[in-house]
Amino acid sequence: MNSRPIGIFDSGIGGLTVFKEVLKELPGESIIYLGDTARVPYGTRSKEIIEEFAVELAEFLLKKNVKCLVVSCNTISSTCLEAVQKVCEVPVIGVVDPAIKEAIKTTENKKIGVIGTNATIESGIYERKIKEMDSSINIFSQAGSLFIPLIEEGFSSHEAARQIAKEYLKRFDGTDIDTLILACTHFPLMTDIISEVIGSNVILVDSAKPTAKELKKLLTEKDLLSDNLLPVYQIFVTDAPDRVYKVSQRFFGNKLPVKPKKVTL
Amino acid sequence: MNSRPIGIFDSGIGGLTVFKEVLKELPGESIIYLGDTARVPYGTRSKEIIEEFAVELAEFLLKKNVKCLVVSCNTISSTCLEAVQKVCEVPVIGVVDPAIKEAIKTTENKKIGVIGTNATIESGIYERKIKEMDSSINIFSQAGSLFIPLIEEGFSSHEAARQIAKEYLKRFDGTDIDTLILACTHFPLMTDIISEVIGSNVILVDSAKPTAKELKKLLTEKDLLSDNLLPVYQIFVTDAPDRVYKVSQRFFGNKLPVKPKKVTL
Repeated sequence: MNSRPIGIFDSGIGGLTVFKEVLKELPGESIIYLGDTARVPYGTRSKEIIEEFAVELAEFLLKKNVKCLVVSCNTISSTCLEAVQKVCEVPVIGVVDPAIKEAIKTTENKKIGVIGTNATIESGIYERKIKEMDSSINIFSQAGSLFIPLIEEGFSSHEAARQIAKEYLKRFDGTDIDTLILACTHFPLMTDIISEVIGSNVILVDSAKPTAKELKKLLTEKDLLSDNLLPVYQIFVTDAPDRVYKVSQRFFGNKLPVKPKKVTL
Repeated sequence: MNSRPIGIFDSGIGGLTVFKEVLKELPGESIIYLGDTARVPYGTRSKEIIEEFAVELAEFLLKKNVKCLVVSCNTISSTCLEAVQKVCEVPVIGVVDPAIKEAIKTTENKKIGVIGTNATIESGIYERKIKEMDSSINIFSQAGSLFIPLIEEGFSSHEAARQIAKEYLKRFDGTDIDTLILACTHFPLMTDIISEVIGSNVILVDSAKPTAKELKKLLTEKDLLSDNLLPVYQIFVTDAPDRVYKVSQRFFGNKLPVKPKKVTL
């Protein structure tokens, strides 16, 4: 047993979808969430700067005495998870492995699509890791960075979002994929349009639930679980805490359990 | 006469449109451009963090011994030009005043529209300054932050961009504006669609040329002009110099005169 908090960090507020699932899966855990809203989005930046920023985020949470770290951001998990692990003495998990395991369980015809930010797709990590686990699987990838501002600006159900989805999802025409990994925490907020455009026969897989389950497994194995009757939640952001509080409902499903506070890294 | 360089800074690479006009207007001047590509975009962030970042950018250029500063970014010019001026001993000009003067010269019916980033529009600076110069002018404003990622991701001529333009420009239906200020350095790259949607009777005004002219006037008045036969150009960015070099042609019109270098602020 270990009552120290779990740390979750993200380039912005997309990771609140993961925070929510962790809270559901592990109701006895205290959680600290950190979102880098001053420098979001990471998905169009270079690997070097993403790593620099990610290490800063991890170090902030380590100072808060977290017992483990969850990298809820696909871009960070894809480009520099190992660099984060290198600076951490506590266990660190990302969202790539859990999503991949879920997709491999889901696919029947062994044809999987992946859509994520530019940096996530350029990293090639999904292809590499899926092939490592099952070399008979075919993987088809597509960058879809525009979905993020569309969602953040409230255009996720707009005709323009449908047009952009059509453009991006063309990549999967004729590939016969039966499973599509939404490799960005924002994308589940566009499930309706993505599903409509790609067809309801393609199953959409995202990382939030599988990551929460993987975290529970990890804490169980390492005997780090907690059963706080009064778990403490803290949410930190590097800019615009009031705006985050307002728009977070879309990601979190409900009102956040606490008001976000602004911090400087 | 003063042969020290002119400093131009921006949240990203949009300000290269201003750099280009300054270079044309003042061919004898050395110029240092700094774009904060590690933290772009600023237009959806808080005033506080924009000010913090802008002061860092200005301080970097001051250390390079610039003789004056041009804030080519509308978001910074709108939210915290005075804060930048406060830390500078050299003259600092933004892009708001030049665009406003141009729009006032252009309008015949005294009805002006403004479209910019969320932060620019929320600042209310265009309304305030136009009213100060001519209280009989009616101003209508609209935030249009999505144009920026659409342009950066190469969707500026896509049907989705037209749909989003229609959504944003609805704001001007029935207002009878004859002039629209493109209050973001990116927006001139969407002139075709904006003009098609709003109608060719509305004249689009942007800040690049008027700012270059205002700069020439300022340097002339303060006796700071230079006639370097071999002016030196330097371009610094905080992330992804190679990507900037590749995509810059859209903003600069030609290949950049020098390759961008990465710097840490």
